[in-house]
Formats: sequence, C-alpha cells, structure tokens
Amino acid sequence: MGRVTERRKVIRIRDGAVSSRPDTLVAEEPLEIRLNGKPLAITMRTPGDDFALAAGFLVSEGVLAAGSDLRNIVYCAGATVDGSNTYNVVDVRTAPDVVIPDITLERNVYTTSSCGLCGKASLDAVRTTTRWPISDTPPVRLEPDLLAGLPDRLRAAQRVFDRTGGLHAAALFTEDGELLDIREDVGRHNAVDKLVGRALQNDDLPLSRVVLLVSGRASFELAQKAVMAGIPVLAAVSAPSSLAVDLAVETGLTLVGFLRGSSMNVYAGEGRIALRTTAAQG
Amino acid sequence: MGRVTERRKVIRIRDGAVSSRPDTLVAEEPLEIRLNGKPLAITMRTPGDDFALAAGFLVSEGVLAAGSDLRNIVYCAGATVDGSNTYNVVDVRTAPDVVIPDITLERNVYTTSSCGLCGKASLDAVRTTTRWPISDTPPVRLEPDLLAGLPDRLRAAQRVFDRTGGLHAAALFTEDGELLDIREDVGRHNAVDKLVGRALQNDDLPLSRVVLLVSGRASFELAQKAVMAGIPVLAAVSAPSSLAVDLAVETGLTLVGFLRGSSMNVYAGEGRIALRTTAAQG
Repeated sequence: MGRVTERRKVIRIRDGAVSSRPDTLVAEEPLEIRLNGKPLAITMRTPGDDFALAAGFLVSEGVLAAGSDLRNIVYCAGATVDGSNTYNVVDVRTAPDVVIPDITLERNVYTTSSCGLCGKASLDAVRTTTRWPISDTPPVRLEPDLLAGLPDRLRAAQRVFDRTGGLHAAALFTEDGELLDIREDVGRHNAVDKLVGRALQNDDLPLSRVVLLVSGRASFELAQKAVMAGIPVLAAVSAPSSLAVDLAVETGLTLVGFLRGSSMNVYAGEGRIALRTTAAQG
Repeated sequence: MGRVTERRKVIRIRDGAVSSRPDTLVAEEPLEIRLNGKPLAITMRTPGDDFALAAGFLVSEGVLAAGSDLRNIVYCAGATVDGSNTYNVVDVRTAPDVVIPDITLERNVYTTSSCGLCGKASLDAVRTTTRWPISDTPPVRLEPDLLAGLPDRLRAAQRVFDRTGGLHAAALFTEDGELLDIREDVGRHNAVDKLVGRALQNDDLPLSRVVLLVSGRASFELAQKAVMAGIPVLAAVSAPSSLAVDLAVETGLTLVGFLRGSSMNVYAGEGRIALRTTAAQG
C-alpha cells in the first residue's frame, strides 16, 4: 500500500561517461477491481488511493453515482499462496438498491447490442448513461488567462513526477482556479478515477463547477470520465483525439487542448470560455 | 479503414487573440478483437493496420508465435443496424493445432490461480509464457552513440504526429541502427502490437536482433510485449516503471530509459550495451 515509488539500480550514461547509482522509479502494480465479489477489470496502476480508484472506475462505468450507492470497499485478503494480502485486489460492494448495468470485458468502452462497435455507439452510450447531462449544469465561465495558469499549478503540485519523471497527473480546479485535488499515477485514466472516486466518497458528485486538467493528451476515455462525473470542462496539456472531440460536442463538454503558456485550442463547448473577439463565433 | 486523422473545427487562442479554423486530429475508434469468433478485448486505437494490431495483441497474450499459427483474420461484417461494416471488429482465426491459453478479461495482465494478483505473478507468467527466452538469443552489442541517434530517427519518421501532435510511436531498428518499421497510434501499446503483428505475418518472429524504441514511457505492458516477441532491447524516451524494470531484470531484457541526446539510463541487461568504463560494473 502506498508504494508510490521504488528504488532500483541504474547505469547512467552521460556523454560517454558511465556511472552506477540507485534511481527512484514510479511504482506500477496490477489492481483487480471486483464488483460485489465478481472480477470486473484489471488495471496497471500506481499503488495508493486504491479504494478511490475503484470507486471512480465504477462512476465511469455508470455503476456508482453517489456515496450512498456504496456499501463498502475492501481489500480481498488471502490472495497469495501464504495467505498474505497483496493489496492488489479490491472488492466494491454496492448498496442493495443499486442496479448493475451491463459492463463489457474491457474498461470504458460501451457496446450496444444494435450497433456492434463503433465510435458513434460509444458516444451514444456515454450521452445516455450519464446521470448529469452537462447542459443541465450551472453556467461556468472561465477567463483564458485563468486556464492558462493551471498547468504550472499542476506541475508545481506534482510531487512524485519530480523524483521519477514517470507519472501522469490529473487535477481538479474550481472555476476560480483554486486547486481542489491532484492525483498522480502511471496511468492517466487511473489518476482521473482516483479524483472522481474521492469525490464520490465525499458525496461531491456531480462536479458541476469544476475544471479537470490532465497532463498529456485527451483521449475518448478521459472525456468519458469527465462526462460521467458531471464535469463541464476538460483541459489537456496536449492533443485530443477525434473521438474525444466528438464526445465533447455531443454532450456539451468544454474541451481545451494544447494548453501551453498563453495558448490553447478550444475544441468544443466554447460558451464556457470568455472569448474577447467575435472571430470565434464564425 | 485507414482513417488515421480527422478534421474538426477548433478555436485557437494565442495571447488573447481568437481565431477559428479547421484542425487535424488523430483518429480514435474502438476495435473489438475476437479470437475464433469469441470477443476477447476492446482497445481504443487509431484505425489502420488492424489485422496486424490484432495479431500482435495475440502474440503478447501468448496465443500466436508464428505465421503458421494464423488461419486468417477478417473484419466482421454486419456490425451496424443497417448491416454496413464499421471495420471496427476483427476476428482472428487460429490454425487447428493452436492451443488457446487462459486469457484474463483485461489486456495484458496475467493471473495465476495460485498467487491471485501481484506484480510477482505477472513477471512469472511472462517469463514462463514467452517462447523465446531472451537468454537464448544471439549476442547483440550496441554502441551508446547508436542508441542515442534513434529517437531523432523515430521523430523524423513520425508523419502523423507532425500534423496532430497526438500520436505515440514505436519503431523497430536493426542492431546497426537501420529503421525496419514504424507505427503510430493513439495508444503506445497498439503501435507496438502493430509492429509485432506485422512481424508475425511476415514470419519474422522472434525479433531477436532488433531494438524496439517507444516514444514516452516504458510500462510493464510494453516490456511484456517486447519479451513475448523475443525482442532483446527496449528503449524508451521517457521513464520506465518499477514493474517494467523488474520484468527486464527477470527475463534478461535490456531496458533503456530517458534516451535523450547523448544521455540514457540503463535499467537492465547492460551486457548488450558497449560501456567504456568499468564504473558500471559495480
């Protein structure tokens, strides 16, 4: 538990000079998520906040939406030969009235019986499954300057990255730019799950006045997680994918990419960004 | 098929100036991989090389190891309401004598009945499953200067990244630094699967005299894919995780991280790197 970093020997080569020393690496371990005792998914994650990770994962899957949906979360003991606990298997037990939807074998891709498997089906599934349509959220309006300042604040708060260079990060900010929470993980999707799961545990869903910022790129999966948590604004330091943009357009999510310095690209939901010129309306 | 990029409208903000224009994004679509008709996994991928992706995925899973293990690969038709083909479902059919191992519900994580789920079990499973133990491969010896030159060559060959900023890349090089193949994908693991699958289709496995270079980080999953394809050297531009290093040590894989300029870190298998001083032996 909490093995966020580990030490390993490394041979460094710098301009031909060779030296040997211990190095700090980001820890990676598998986590099996069970739902009411039934194995559901395995994710490679950085240990720590495992209960929040599991809860957030199940928010993305449409299983959980409020703290009251949870009965409890436990580590499954006796997972090894000698009976000791690996702390790598968690069981999420839902409250009696929670209806469990069909969940596919792989995380975060919805299939529908009618349409086989295509991007359109995935978009439809997320749009119809979220309990908090973004169109219903209270108006949020962000200054570009405020958004532009967020990556530096994310970076400053990334403690483990500084030591390992090996972590993705995700953070929640208020509409005033105040850092609410940050999580680091070897997988960006895990970092987001940990944020959302923590919010669920605190009964803070939907996160309807919050900006989600992620290091790196914005995939469909991350946009899906934002929508399922009722988050109206997703900002990424790097590029979005086509399907992430399509999902944002479809659901009303504000999607900002390439957020660097005073520059950014707005791919969808520009109504929440305070644009000063009218060129953008065309 | 082959929808590697797509165009979407974007609003650009640059130092307060706002403009609207079309932007090129990396395409992302789900791909369902079926094995002998049975759904096995879904991955979010950049369309193109889908058969190679599916074949490479099944090399990583220990199902395929030679071109003769494949009967054929087909797109499953009739996946949509109107019967048209989404080209997002592929079925891999194996030759009659291929034994299908147990495969878990989530990609690339092995479980064993005895040990539940821990990093150690994952390492053991890869070590015992690969058909080409790296210790058996012919000796490969690489000059650090040669390794140092590979990222620039990868970057120069990345065609789609230049337009979208949104793709991961993976490439195979000979031990003389010659580029053999490169693939780009929204998911780094997919890019590696495409390389390995193509090699399988060409009956080039094991890739025992080859260097695999990946953009970004080296996770357990990528190290696993290298080992399962008989690749002796994995180099990454960014940090490895603890479990990737453990797997490399366990299997004899050479693992190089932070390959930037004339600098690199060697985490395992340093015998394949021509080190000039003796400091590294300590």
